[in-house]
Amino acid sequence: MPVLHENLLMEMKKLTDEKRATSNETVLQQHSKDESHHTPVLPEVVVFPNSASEVSSILQYASNHQIPVVPFGAGSSLEGHCIPLQGGISINFQNMNKILEVREEDFLVRVQPGVTRTQLNQSLKKYGLFFPVDPGADATLGGMAATNASGTTSVRYGIMRPQVRDLEVVLADGSIIRTGGLAAKSSSGYHLTSLFVGSEGTLGVFTELTLKIYGIPEATVAGRAVFPSVKAAVDGAISLLASGNSLARVELVDEHSIRQVNRHSETSYPEKPTLFLEFHGNPAGMKQDVAFAEELLSANGSEDLIFETDSIKKAKLWEARHHLAYAFKHGFPGREMMLTDVCVPLSELTDAVVYARKLIENEGLNGGVLGHVGDGNFHSILMFDKNNEEETEKANRINEKIVEYALSKNGSCTGEHGIGIGKMKYLKKEHADTLPLMKMIKKQFDPRNILNPGKVLF
Amino acid sequence: MPVLHENLLMEMKKLTDEKRATSNETVLQQHSKDESHHTPVLPEVVVFPNSASEVSSILQYASNHQIPVVPFGAGSSLEGHCIPLQGGISINFQNMNKILEVREEDFLVRVQPGVTRTQLNQSLKKYGLFFPVDPGADATLGGMAATNASGTTSVRYGIMRPQVRDLEVVLADGSIIRTGGLAAKSSSGYHLTSLFVGSEGTLGVFTELTLKIYGIPEATVAGRAVFPSVKAAVDGAISLLASGNSLARVELVDEHSIRQVNRHSETSYPEKPTLFLEFHGNPAGMKQDVAFAEELLSANGSEDLIFETDSIKKAKLWEARHHLAYAFKHGFPGREMMLTDVCVPLSELTDAVVYARKLIENEGLNGGVLGHVGDGNFHSILMFDKNNEEETEKANRINEKIVEYALSKNGSCTGEHGIGIGKMKYLKKEHADTLPLMKMIKKQFDPRNILNPGKVLF
Repeated sequence: MPVLHENLLMEMKKLTDEKRATSNETVLQQHSKDESHHTPVLPEVVVFPNSASEVSSILQYASNHQIPVVPFGAGSSLEGHCIPLQGGISINFQNMNKILEVREEDFLVRVQPGVTRTQLNQSLKKYGLFFPVDPGADATLGGMAATNASGTTSVRYGIMRPQVRDLEVVLADGSIIRTGGLAAKSSSGYHLTSLFVGSEGTLGVFTELTLKIYGIPEATVAGRAVFPSVKAAVDGAISLLASGNSLARVELVDEHSIRQVNRHSETSYPEKPTLFLEFHGNPAGMKQDVAFAEELLSANGSEDLIFETDSIKKAKLWEARHHLAYAFKHGFPGREMMLTDVCVPLSELTDAVVYARKLIENEGLNGGVLGHVGDGNFHSILMFDKNNEEETEKANRINEKIVEYALSKNGSCTGEHGIGIGKMKYLKKEHADTLPLMKMIKKQFDPRNILNPGKVLF
Repeated sequence: MPVLHENLLMEMKKLTDEKRATSNETVLQQHSKDESHHTPVLPEVVVFPNSASEVSSILQYASNHQIPVVPFGAGSSLEGHCIPLQGGISINFQNMNKILEVREEDFLVRVQPGVTRTQLNQSLKKYGLFFPVDPGADATLGGMAATNASGTTSVRYGIMRPQVRDLEVVLADGSIIRTGGLAAKSSSGYHLTSLFVGSEGTLGVFTELTLKIYGIPEATVAGRAVFPSVKAAVDGAISLLASGNSLARVELVDEHSIRQVNRHSETSYPEKPTLFLEFHGNPAGMKQDVAFAEELLSANGSEDLIFETDSIKKAKLWEARHHLAYAFKHGFPGREMMLTDVCVPLSELTDAVVYARKLIENEGLNGGVLGHVGDGNFHSILMFDKNNEEETEKANRINEKIVEYALSKNGSCTGEHGIGIGKMKYLKKEHADTLPLMKMIKKQFDPRNILNPGKVLF
């Protein structure tokens, strides 16, 4: 049971105002969890700062009184990142949700951490620009930077880390720093921006981000290719990657997941391993890429191949992929969802996916496998009854085995969800060499261990 | 005058063998400098390890006896990185030049740090693959990672940092660690790979690198566009970038540089601001991109526009850009060359280049301006007589003013050459906020300050 701190609510009200700090039970509960299966823990106070200087005051106070602080964005994290394990203060960034500056000519945007990615893309549209990183959930950009999120488009545009040009960070002692600049390239000293991105709130709290943005591609084509086996689908994807074309998305969805989608959306997609594809480029290039893709995918055994350029049909096509988690939730009411997240070298992907599929079947759980195949990153969706010890153990066992498999192939225990609470023991294994260095850095940056304590590092 | 260490040569011979450690005057001189204008300093011993474990022994010895260690690749750095400022040991990696593994399907290659980029590309060719980062010089990959190099292709493929998937690093105390893995994506803890890349030998010594490689594009087109002014050329480049096409290179060369090229190569290029361009893609896409590029460049005032697909003509076209430094060296025999290197936000590039041009003219030095315009990164080539104090001062003054200008626009004091010796005072200005954190990290990683001491951080 976390320690309670006398006067904490009153002090937080003093640092913000009467309405922006609360211990209301409902609000505490909203900030006790994320979208993962991890057990909720209540914070003591939730505070809603309006500015970096308020965040700074909050951290100064927290530092002086050694009170844990956990930043909270959209709460869409998947490894318990924003669960206040040791109570203390949850900082909700909903008021810091302004798009501060669009620098069209520089392909940069400056935002507060509470801006969500769809909010950002809605405002960028009128400039013909967009922010590509798409983790599925409508996460905040602060949260996406904190976990080094990625998703469906990273095969083309890259993950979160290289998109972050500059960060305003409040350090544990309340000092406000800037880590980068506006230059597209720099070799100016140690790259601390890269260190903060992915640090999951354990090294500092982000109060502003400058992000790289892109011109909306002239043309996009979406496609769906159905295969007799997972192996054929992954091989097809790898052949596309090797051909060096304008692939912007390539997603694997297994037959079990398609079945859930059909049930949920009353569609009648063939219930077989399927690749969902997207190409970005110019119309002529697209046409040639799609023709070549058709050849390559057919050569790899694709039985049913559809390409769409019409925007409504494209959206419809991607619906299946986007609604997958909901389809499973609806398909198994009352059951909890565990989402595994590993990344393996591309050459190991087929075997890893087949292995995951077998594990799920052997344990007799309901679930699907889906993957950002272009990066070797895949997830299993495992449906289990949280109150049934055996089922919970089964889900944990599958997750553990999938991670161990990935690590045995020199892969990563987390492709994009982060370490949070759930992957700490695997980080220890994956990065045994660098863990002492990470700990050294954590100790220097946060000597009183107030920043999201109990996460990432043992 | 650096301190001499008794028995150092003998000890280094013991750790390697009789032939692989030397204090031969000529060899010491070869390791006293890089390609910059910075004053040479002799190391005490040069050692040529064959393996990480030899490097480890050398570092253990150096650590125990507090002897400075400087890694040496091709010696092509431009800010004095491999000058052994405090004497000690220069570690030459010429024996560690093996390509250890090409993982075709994973788009990865594992190399020793002494492999050069042209050596790598020659071996990758037969796989239809290539490594895109091209800083101009035939640098070693260890050196390129140490300085976070980039060059002409980063507008399309990115800079060095995101290409590095895994590093084997020998730390100051001799321990050998791995920082990454083979997964294309990972959110597993603090990203130490990104911290080591660009650390210029001050945090550890690289003994192996795993790098991302790419499929050779199906088609490339090279182009040259001549403009009435630098402003028109840069505006033309920005319009290309905004159109979201398959631009892989876009280089600005000013009229003074073209003049040197014409003199050096007996060519007759129009002596006006010129953009050199390259597109990578498929033939149909290329064609459409080039047609659109012609429209955009003409709209921005391009007077003379040539596109080539023939490989000999393409090579000829790029010669002018590639031979620029030599053209200047030949044009002004006996004079030293200073290369400035700043990066500004794209929207500030025109003014910054015009400003640099004016500075050179006002000071009355010979020189040119050239730039990786796609990234806002540009260089001035300044020719000066090292023995003439006034000329040296002029060159230094121009460099200083260009850097100050870039910093005033939230740019970087170094786009790609690194801090080394020459930019330490500007790093202090550019990253005043994070300098204390950098120092903290340096102190933790290298408590006895033996790793490339006197560089990067004051």
